[in-house]
Amino acid sequence: MSSSPSSEVTLAAIEDAATRLRGMAVLTPLLESPPLNKRLGGRLLVKAEPLQRTGSFKFRGAYNRMCRLDAEQKKRGVVAYSSGNHAQGVAAAAQILGMPAVIVMPADAPAIKIANTRAYGAEVVTYDRYSESREEIGRNIQNQRGAVLVPPFDDPCVITGQGTIGLEIAAQAGAAGAKLDAFLCGASGGGLLTGTAMALHAKSPDTKIYVVEPQGFDDFGRSLKSGRRESNDAKARSICDSLLSPSPGEITFPIAKQHVAGSFAVSDDEVRRAMAVAFAELKLVVEPGGAVSLAAVLAGKFDIKGKTVAVVCSGGNVDPETFIAALRTA
Amino acid sequence: MSSSPSSEVTLAAIEDAATRLRGMAVLTPLLESPPLNKRLGGRLLVKAEPLQRTGSFKFRGAYNRMCRLDAEQKKRGVVAYSSGNHAQGVAAAAQILGMPAVIVMPADAPAIKIANTRAYGAEVVTYDRYSESREEIGRNIQNQRGAVLVPPFDDPCVITGQGTIGLEIAAQAGAAGAKLDAFLCGASGGGLLTGTAMALHAKSPDTKIYVVEPQGFDDFGRSLKSGRRESNDAKARSICDSLLSPSPGEITFPIAKQHVAGSFAVSDDEVRRAMAVAFAELKLVVEPGGAVSLAAVLAGKFDIKGKTVAVVCSGGNVDPETFIAALRTA
Repeated sequence: MSSSPSSEVTLAAIEDAATRLRGMAVLTPLLESPPLNKRLGGRLLVKAEPLQRTGSFKFRGAYNRMCRLDAEQKKRGVVAYSSGNHAQGVAAAAQILGMPAVIVMPADAPAIKIANTRAYGAEVVTYDRYSESREEIGRNIQNQRGAVLVPPFDDPCVITGQGTIGLEIAAQAGAAGAKLDAFLCGASGGGLLTGTAMALHAKSPDTKIYVVEPQGFDDFGRSLKSGRRESNDAKARSICDSLLSPSPGEITFPIAKQHVAGSFAVSDDEVRRAMAVAFAELKLVVEPGGAVSLAAVLAGKFDIKGKTVAVVCSGGNVDPETFIAALRTA
Repeated sequence: MSSSPSSEVTLAAIEDAATRLRGMAVLTPLLESPPLNKRLGGRLLVKAEPLQRTGSFKFRGAYNRMCRLDAEQKKRGVVAYSSGNHAQGVAAAAQILGMPAVIVMPADAPAIKIANTRAYGAEVVTYDRYSESREEIGRNIQNQRGAVLVPPFDDPCVITGQGTIGLEIAAQAGAAGAKLDAFLCGASGGGLLTGTAMALHAKSPDTKIYVVEPQGFDDFGRSLKSGRRESNDAKARSICDSLLSPSPGEITFPIAKQHVAGSFAVSDDEVRRAMAVAFAELKLVVEPGGAVSLAAVLAGKFDIKGKTVAVVCSGGNVDPETFIAALRTA
């Protein structure tokens, strides 16, 4: 019997993560706007992870990984590379668990994400997103300090931590009398996508699951079509700063293949319009990368008419000027 | 034994309202930001009513009043006057309960509030806020159509509906291990203030309760000092469009006298800065009038150091340009 790390992503492991996260993570609401439903001709349920501790879902996976470290590991601390949300998740978990954290962040990450990571007491090291390898810098610090690397997505405990969102959506949709026809989820490396897919399919096997990515960063979409892990063009650009990883993860991709029925890609302007709708109809601050699954529904890429559909707004860490530009996109 | 309408505002009536609202109103989260707490030197809990159905707390009171109408009354429908949030609350409740609604709104109410009220299927009649009496226009429509008037605050069922927020805050603070030293609440006519004060004092008698108003509209503050219902200067202006009623209500004022320990008034810029903090730290869209109690804490009018304090962000129905101006207020 061979066993892969992907096989560790089970319903039982996600339920264990939920137990560990109880009282630490926010049980974020599943929001709904009757006027928006009326306009769309379907029922849309929005998981509001901007209201999560650190302003994104990333705290869930980071804490679920880090709470398992032993006393010696806790003393040496952790290192993580991140465009910003995983950074804050790791920094906040380290602060709660009383361990040092070094975070490797792109120099062009939103100022709010860098500032908040430092506010949680972490040491921040910046790098150039387009010329340097964050994985290499992370590994170097790991070796120098004997720190434990907390990967942003390709780790079973990180994936199962994010998967607690799937359990919550299933329970909250049930309580709202909603039977989910479909679930749309953004993806960068695929931790959120595959964890929630595993949990949601365990609880609601008939729900079709779709991945949504920014145009130019549709590596999951292309990989699911070709059957192997494809990479994005290094010259691609997107306002979705939290969804720019180059290809699906080694652990996440096999799970995605089992669960994902199809894919959509959304443009920067479709994302901005979704942020404006979240502002007007849900009163929720959503960052660009957090708005892609909502954007796929609002732009009509996925046809919600007559259906009940859940999406995740995965984060809300956005600089004011980026948010203002979204509000002004007609 | 004489009994006044104020005496109908009891814990039992608020608990009855909570039962009627279950599954209709959103159990909004009590949000908290550890970085914000650290900066303030205290623990701040924020009740997030922008996430309520219709984007403000007003749905609670409107539904709790209207669900008690009999079949004949339901056929003739309801009329309400409102700067916008009560309008949407009444319109949404009327739609759910299947009755017609006419809403009298100031012509200069935020466009989003007028549009949303119409989207819920209500008929909107506009008037000039500074030269016409909304009460008189409302009474005329009431007489012509035999419609039931749903007052914005001076009605026991409206007050007890809003009071369900106090029950929720007490339960949610308890679940978060928080013992509330103080509760700060915005007020216009005082329905939210007095309903929540009654509920919260029943559950947490040692919590000090304070009222917060916009500068120039501090009628509750002045009335509590003088002991009688004072009015605001008709020439006063504020960005807090939802908090402009001229004086405390007849029913609400005696209740406020029993429960409120003191008052604060906040400036337009203090309100804008609070909206910007809610955006950055809570990922919550808050309208000007919904941000006054948060503003009182952030501006240091109420000293939170070493204390645990709850505030209500009461609504999030704000036009983009007003929100953008808040984000740009340094």
